[in-house]
Parts: sequence; C-alpha cells; structure tokens
Amino acid sequence: MPSTFSRYLPILTWGRTYNKSAFTNDMIAALIVTIMLIPQSLAYALLAGLPPEAGLYASIAPIILYAIFGTSRALAVGPVAVVSLMTAAALGNIVDQGTAGYAIAALSLALLSGLMLLGMGIFRLGFIANFLSHPVIAGFITASGVIIAASQLKHILGINAEGHNLLQLVISLFEHLGEINWITAIIGVIATSFLFWVRKGLKPLLLKNGVSKTMADVATKAGPVAVVVLTTLAVWLFNLADYGVKIVGDVPQSLPPLTMPSLSPELLKQLLLPAFLISIIGFVESISVAQTLAAKKRQRIDPDQELIGLGAANLGAAFTGGFPVTGGFSRSVVNFDAGAETPAAGAFTAIGLAIAALALTPLIFFLPKATLAATIIVAVLSLVDFSILKRSWGYSKADFAAVLATILLTLAMGVEAGVSAGVGLSILLHLYKSSKPHIAEVGLVPGTEHFRNILRHSVETKPEIVTLRVDESLYFANARFLEDKIYNRVTADKAIKHVILQCTAINAIDLSALESLEAINTRLGEMDVKLHLSEVKGPVMDRLKRAHFLDELTGRVFLTQFDAVKANS
Amino acid sequence: MPSTFSRYLPILTWGRTYNKSAFTNDMIAALIVTIMLIPQSLAYALLAGLPPEAGLYASIAPIILYAIFGTSRALAVGPVAVVSLMTAAALGNIVDQGTAGYAIAALSLALLSGLMLLGMGIFRLGFIANFLSHPVIAGFITASGVIIAASQLKHILGINAEGHNLLQLVISLFEHLGEINWITAIIGVIATSFLFWVRKGLKPLLLKNGVSKTMADVATKAGPVAVVVLTTLAVWLFNLADYGVKIVGDVPQSLPPLTMPSLSPELLKQLLLPAFLISIIGFVESISVAQTLAAKKRQRIDPDQELIGLGAANLGAAFTGGFPVTGGFSRSVVNFDAGAETPAAGAFTAIGLAIAALALTPLIFFLPKATLAATIIVAVLSLVDFSILKRSWGYSKADFAAVLATILLTLAMGVEAGVSAGVGLSILLHLYKSSKPHIAEVGLVPGTEHFRNILRHSVETKPEIVTLRVDESLYFANARFLEDKIYNRVTADKAIKHVILQCTAINAIDLSALESLEAINTRLGEMDVKLHLSEVKGPVMDRLKRAHFLDELTGRVFLTQFDAVKANS
Repeated sequence: MPSTFSRYLPILTWGRTYNKSAFTNDMIAALIVTIMLIPQSLAYALLAGLPPEAGLYASIAPIILYAIFGTSRALAVGPVAVVSLMTAAALGNIVDQGTAGYAIAALSLALLSGLMLLGMGIFRLGFIANFLSHPVIAGFITASGVIIAASQLKHILGINAEGHNLLQLVISLFEHLGEINWITAIIGVIATSFLFWVRKGLKPLLLKNGVSKTMADVATKAGPVAVVVLTTLAVWLFNLADYGVKIVGDVPQSLPPLTMPSLSPELLKQLLLPAFLISIIGFVESISVAQTLAAKKRQRIDPDQELIGLGAANLGAAFTGGFPVTGGFSRSVVNFDAGAETPAAGAFTAIGLAIAALALTPLIFFLPKATLAATIIVAVLSLVDFSILKRSWGYSKADFAAVLATILLTLAMGVEAGVSAGVGLSILLHLYKSSKPHIAEVGLVPGTEHFRNILRHSVETKPEIVTLRVDESLYFANARFLEDKIYNRVTADKAIKHVILQCTAINAIDLSALESLEAINTRLGEMDVKLHLSEVKGPVMDRLKRAHFLDELTGRVFLTQFDAVKANS
Repeated sequence: MPSTFSRYLPILTWGRTYNKSAFTNDMIAALIVTIMLIPQSLAYALLAGLPPEAGLYASIAPIILYAIFGTSRALAVGPVAVVSLMTAAALGNIVDQGTAGYAIAALSLALLSGLMLLGMGIFRLGFIANFLSHPVIAGFITASGVIIAASQLKHILGINAEGHNLLQLVISLFEHLGEINWITAIIGVIATSFLFWVRKGLKPLLLKNGVSKTMADVATKAGPVAVVVLTTLAVWLFNLADYGVKIVGDVPQSLPPLTMPSLSPELLKQLLLPAFLISIIGFVESISVAQTLAAKKRQRIDPDQELIGLGAANLGAAFTGGFPVTGGFSRSVVNFDAGAETPAAGAFTAIGLAIAALALTPLIFFLPKATLAATIIVAVLSLVDFSILKRSWGYSKADFAAVLATILLTLAMGVEAGVSAGVGLSILLHLYKSSKPHIAEVGLVPGTEHFRNILRHSVETKPEIVTLRVDESLYFANARFLEDKIYNRVTADKAIKHVILQCTAINAIDLSALESLEAINTRLGEMDVKLHLSEVKGPVMDRLKRAHFLDELTGRVFLTQFDAVKANS
C-alpha cells in the first residue's frame, strides 16, 4: 500500500521525516525566493500579455501542487520566460491581448498543457521529450531570449509594437519610433543599465571593499527589488504617469480566484499544438534543472513523476487565474542555494506570495512597466548564448544544421515554427545517418579465424564469395540501402556465387528489413547466387524462425563466419 | 566525358549496342502492351476524375522520357491505380471535377511531382523513400485498393456517389441506391464477373482443353479488350445510351496537346503535400517493380537515376495533357514477359498509343463507363491483401500497429491521412525502440578477461564499481535514458565509487549524447563518483577529442574493460 501511494505522492516520503531544522531552512529559502519572485512574476505576466496579478496567481497554487506531487526537493515552479513567450505567441494568433477572452484562453492553455503532462506521466510517455535534441533546445532558448528582449523594448521606449518574431518586432518598433516617450525611455534605460551593473559589477565591487560574500550575494539579489521600489517612488513623487509613463495601475487585492478555463472545442483545437510544444519545452527545461540540483545531493528525480507534478501545477494554474508554468532555472537555483531542503520551501513561498497578492498590490500601483521590462531583458539576455553554433560546428555538421535552422526559424517565424523545425530536422538527420549504415566487406586475416574490413587490413578473400558485415540493426530506413549495396556488388562481378551476411552487429531486424532480406534472397536466387547468414544473435534468430525466412533461404545459417567461408570454399 | 553523360542519359549505354534482334523483341512487346494499355489508360483517367483521353496522353510523352532517362530495361511508365486515386483525392478537395480547372490542376500536380522527383534525384535524396516501411506500404496499397474498388461501384450501378474515403463512399452509395440504372448495372456486373472469370478460370479451362500455354496466355490478356469491344457493340446496337447507360462519348482525335500547368501560388501551395506523397508512393512502387525485373536478368537499377527518369516522365505528363504517372506493376510485368529488351519497347508503345489517340478514339464513343469501372475493380482487387496484418502480428507488434493504423486511417480518412499516419507512426515506433536501448550491467567471467551481463551469467563484480554496456549508438533520443539509468543505479547504492561505460557497441555519439555524458560526468563528480570509459572505437574517440570532454572526465579512458576494472580495484 504505502509504496503505491508514495510513487504518486512523494510528499509521503519526505513529509514523514520532516523536522524543525528542515523547517527553519525551508522558511529562510522561502523568504528569499518570495522577494525575488514578486517582480519576476509580475514581469512574466506582462510578457505573456496578461495582467500583472496573473503572474502572482500562477506562482501560488502551482507551487503547492508541485510540492505535493513533484520529486525534486528544490525545484521552484511558476511562470518562466520562454513559456510565457510561447503563451503570448499561442494566444496572440487567436484572441486580442487585453480582452477577457485572452485571459480565459490562457487558462485553457494551462488546462490543456496540464492534462497533456499528466497524461504523459501516467502513461510513462516522458520519452517524447527526448526527441528534442540538446543543441536544438539550446538554439531555441537563445533565439527565444532574443525575441523576448526585443518584445520588451516597446515598454522601455513607451511605444506600441507588436509581433511574434524578430522581423515583425523590429519593423513594428521602427514604425512607432516617432511615438517614443522620453521620460519612460530614461527610466527604462537607467533601470536596464542598473540591473546589468548589479549583475556584473556590483558583487566584485562590494567584495573589493571588504563586504562579506553573503552580504554581497544578498545585495546582488535585492537589485531588482531596489529598482522596483526606486522607480515606483519616482513615478509617484513626480506624477510621471501624467507625462505618459505607463504604470501597472490597479491590481486587485485578492487571493488567487477560482477560475474556469474556456472549454470551447474550437479554441481547444487551436491551442492543441501550442499546448503540446509548451508542455514539452517546459518539461525539458524543468527536468534538467531538477536533475542538476538533485545530483548535487545524490538525490533521485523520477521523470514520469515529474510530469505528474508539472501537470498538477498547470491544472492548478488553470483553475486559479494563472497561465502555463514550469520549473524555472533561476528561481530553483536561488531556492537551492538559500538552503531549501524539501518541497515545503515551495509551499512557504506560496504563502509569501499569497500575502503579497492580498496586501502588497496597492504598493505597485505606480510601478512603471518599463521597470518590469528591464527586469525581463536582463534576465533573458543571460539565456542568449550563440556559442552553441560554434560548438556544434566543431563537433558535427548535422547537429549544426539543426541548431542553425532552429535559431533562424525561431527568429524569423516565431517560437512554434522554430521548435517544430528543430525537432523535425533532428529526427530527419538522425534517420538519414542511420539510413546509410556502415557496411564493410570483410576477409579472413591469414592464420586466424578473424575477419576484418578488406579496405583496412590485408586479408584473404575468394572470388566466388563476398562477405558483408552490417554495423547497425536492420530496419525500414536502411533496408533498401543494404539491398542496393548487395545488388551493385553482385551485378558488377559475375564470378560471385555466394553472399554471406555477417550479422555480428545486428541487434534487431524489423518486418521491412525482413522483407528486404527475402527480396534479396529471391533475387540472388534468380542470379544463381546463394545467400548465407553468419553469427546471427539469439533474439534475432528467434524472430527469423517465426517468419519462415530461414525455410526459403537459398544458403545456410552458420554459427561463425569462419564456418561459413569454409563450407562454401 | 561519356561517363558523365551516360550517368544522366542511360540511353547512351543501351542505344549504342541496339540491334535488329532487340528491335524485333521490343516491337512485339510494345504491341502487346499497347493493346493492354488502351482500356487501362482510359480507366485510370476515369479514376483520377479526368476525361478518358488524359489517360492516353499520360502514357505517351512520359514513356518516351522515361526511355531516355530511366535505368530499368522493362519498366512501363504511365497512370497507375494508386497514384490515380491519390490524384483524385488531392484535386477533389480543391477544384470541382469535370471543370477545366480540374484538368489544369492535374497538370500542376504532375509538374510539382516531376520537379520533386527530379530534385530528389539530382540531390540524391532517394533515401527519403526509405521512411516508408514495407508493412506501411502494403497496408496502404491494400486500403487504397478497397477505396478504389468502392469508388467504381457508382459506375457499375450507374448512380452518383462521391467521397475520398470508404465511409463517405459507402454512405453516398446508399443514399443514391434508388437511382440505380438497371441496364448499366447488368452491363457492369456481367463485365466484372467475366473479367474475374478470365483472370481465374479461363486459363485452366483452355489448358485442360488442349490449347497451348502461349495461346491461353494471349487469350487471358485479351480479356479486357474483348469486354471493351463487346459492351461497346452492345451499347451501339441497342442504343443503350438512350436508356441512361453512361458512355465515354466524344474523345478528341489528336496527338497529345501541348499544355501549360497552372502556376497559381495558391494552388501550388495546396498541392505541395499531395505532390510529395504522390512522388514518394510512386517512386517506391516503381523502384520495387524495376528491381524485381532487373534482378531476373542480373541488371542494375540506379535509384537516384530512377528518380530523374520518373521526374522527367511527370514533367512530360504536365506539359502534354496528362496527370501524375509512375512505373506500373502489371504493365511492366507484361512488357517483361512479352520479351522487351530495352526501353525502346516503351518508345514503340508510345507510338502505338499515339496512333490510338489519333485514329481509334471514335471507336470508343459508345464504350460504357461501367466497363472501364469493371476493368479497374478487377485490376485493383489483386492489390488487396490483408494478410500483411497476420504476417506483421506474428513478427512484431510495432510493425502491426503501424500497418493497422495505416489501413484504418486510409479507409476512414483517405489516402493522404493514411500514408502520413503510417510514416509518422513507423518513425515514432522506431525512435521509441531506439530511445530505450539495451543497457546491460556486466561483470567479469572468472578466469577470463571477458565481461558478460550479470543477469545471464555467473560473473564477478565489485561493490565500488559498476560497469554498464550500452548496445546502441548514443544520440539525442536515448541520451536521457542513459542518464536516468546511471543516476538510478548510483543514487540507490552509496557504495559505488566508479562508473565504467563499456563502449564496444557505440558506433557514434552525437552532440546531445555528448552533453549528456558531460552532465553525467559533472553530476557523478558532485557525488564523488568517477566516470570511466572503456573500449571506445576509433572514430568515436576522434570526435570526443575534438570536444574537450576527455579533459574534463573525472576518470580515465581504458583500452579494454579488463584494464579499467584492474586499475580501479
């Protein structure tokens, strides 16, 4: 009984041994993460095209649900940059931003994503995420970072601009450049520069001046909060809103509301693909953070259970006024570094954010949107890393092609086209490589019973026998390649009477490959050439026996390649 | 010089040695094929939703172009059943049948298909066709045969019925069943029964009555022509057209006209996917026929040059009033059996058909459409073979799933959905299988230097060392699986200090897998566990060296697994 429950409810495992020391550590971590999350949540809501409170709501119920169902001890779940961008891209094509329908469609997107993640977890389909190759993800994240930064420039400059890809955004920015609000632009540029300086220059400066490392760390992390406070004060004191500086304005003082996603079949159908892509990207991002942190304490992450945890979190977001969420990198690392020991830290963070949503929202009335945009830009530019291009170029041209296509298509056509193309190309290139397996013609090493590639070793061969060793399992994508190889060899050399396939490296033969072997056998038979097999593995042999192929084989099956050559000499 | 030309112009090879004996044989074959092709061409045009003359035109220029560019000595190119059905399905969604736009769209489809085939040939992309697994093709052809037969029932019964999948067709047939034309139905049923009898019962009967085998063969092949002549005479003599029997009617007396496909971007965009599917299916059908026939004479087929030949044939069809064509099974076999020695037989067939188009079309004015439908039904039912279901079930459940999905989706949703789903599912199942590679934990066979699976052999292991042997190349789809496997093993057993990866079976490591190895190395390092590699293949080692992975490796690379264990004991 307990084992079944514990599988689906990891909270039963760590909850049983929860003690005061863990509680203290979790509380401290929660406090630090809460302070960091308040501006971040508001900013990502803005990025997703939603009212700021949606960012807070999306960080409350989801965190608690993940704490119950997730397996990572340190993962912090909530809105993250890339998923927020994908949300904006998905909804922007369907509903107008700022309408009630937009917020409700965001709930539907979270609902679909939650159901998909939950389904993949229950049916153990997490392997689907494996089809995103690492270089494709790296390229996608980099290109998304560029688009996100570009999309925030309008807030920094106080102008209107729309677009879901770089080209649209740049054109739109230039078109509206005349409408620039200079006070907004000054706030935006100062806030951005300050945050960059906090990130790069503050800590070394403090350390140089004798401040302790811990204090320097805290000061660095407090940077965004300081910018929020200072710019809000500035707007309030100087009535800058009257000069056209866009502010956050009224945010309801409330706990997360109970909400109902739209179940319109038309809408759900349009959101199906985006929800799938968001689920996969979110899962991949989350699991790699979780595994990195778990490894540091030799803890275990269960990918299928992670899907369930993230699925529950997204369902939570769908019914409490949020939008799609996942495990975020920066917040999780902060949580871990601050000493979080169990998912209870997440629950305490949720309580902190709930208090903020209930009590602190009037304080951010005058918070300029430019400040939130600055927070986003500084956060996402750390995601941008074009070195993956150089890295993949040096390692493998196929990987490079996939990365380049992903980056270019994401920039030019948006996130959905980019990630779809990346996945498609990765799979195609992989199939292409494995569709042309290495096939060596082998001969006998004199004085031994070993056979080696005739091109690389000085070996003995006989004119009437050709032996081919296939260095890969045979399946539909490479079956025809083997056929061609054999026909080319046999039609070019009329002396050949025996073809031996040395099957040492063949782990499996699918039905297509079996039919190719049958065709090879029949056609060689018509040319008066016999087909033999040697060194067939046990499981492959079992399968061949089921299919009557061996009854029709013109030649024989030999235990060793040496026997095969000896018998036909 | 000649070799470059000969590569792209196979005619230069066989044309140089063409002699009188080959000429005689080619002429005889051409005569037989021409007689067979006249009713068949008309029938397939009907199936594609086009006027009957389009079938003749599609058999003239394409045959000649294939004779120049193709590599098969016996392949006969022209309209075939499945491609004609796919043409009707592709166009039916876009243009109304019977309009001028429909025929022009058919030209555009042939143009696109021709350009795609040509492009694939020039860039040597024929491997794309390999992604159609044999069982998927078999399922698809079977389901298409059923749909084609069902689609012809309306002509047999003299009613109207529309639909591109079985469900639509059956419903539509039932709705119009009241409109049945009894005279048409009698002609249709008699013609169909007669053709079935010719195919199954005539030859044994003739042989039993002392007729020579050759004469019996000729009589069997003349069956369709006899039905055409008899039913045409019946309609003419008894004025059956006045009683509602639908006839072929006026067919222009003309050589193939010069035609221009529509280049409307809107239309071409809609035809892109269908043209691609038609190209791939057509190529696969054609190449397997060509290879079967070539093997019988130990001749060679060049798949990339075949693409060029078929591409040229389709371009020919596009500009001479045809529609998409490919190498047909039955006509090619007849051509081969009749003794065709070179592609010149095809050219002579084209001349025969041109004479028919120019002189014989008035003779088929009274030919009932029901007769053509009967010809189609009898021809395609030989394609229907559900035994692939049993065969794949017995061999591999994954292959069975792909076949079943292809058949059901083709029947329920039409040819495009069916073949797309089949390909998608084949690839997914293959990736799924290779995403969970066989990973064995191995130990030392006592008294030897060999290592074997600890689950199957009695071997020696050490508590602080775990050795894993991966029986597949590492790439993005299985990289995470290896990560999970290693983390699970190491977090469950705190005694482990060394993880050795035995790389005997790893032929390649892509960038994703490399990054997984780096992550494994780093995370194991954080757990104070060292990662070692043993028996790394040369090419894999070269690549790893380029990527600095070996510099960061916490453990070492050993030439043999035995060394690795000895060094860490």
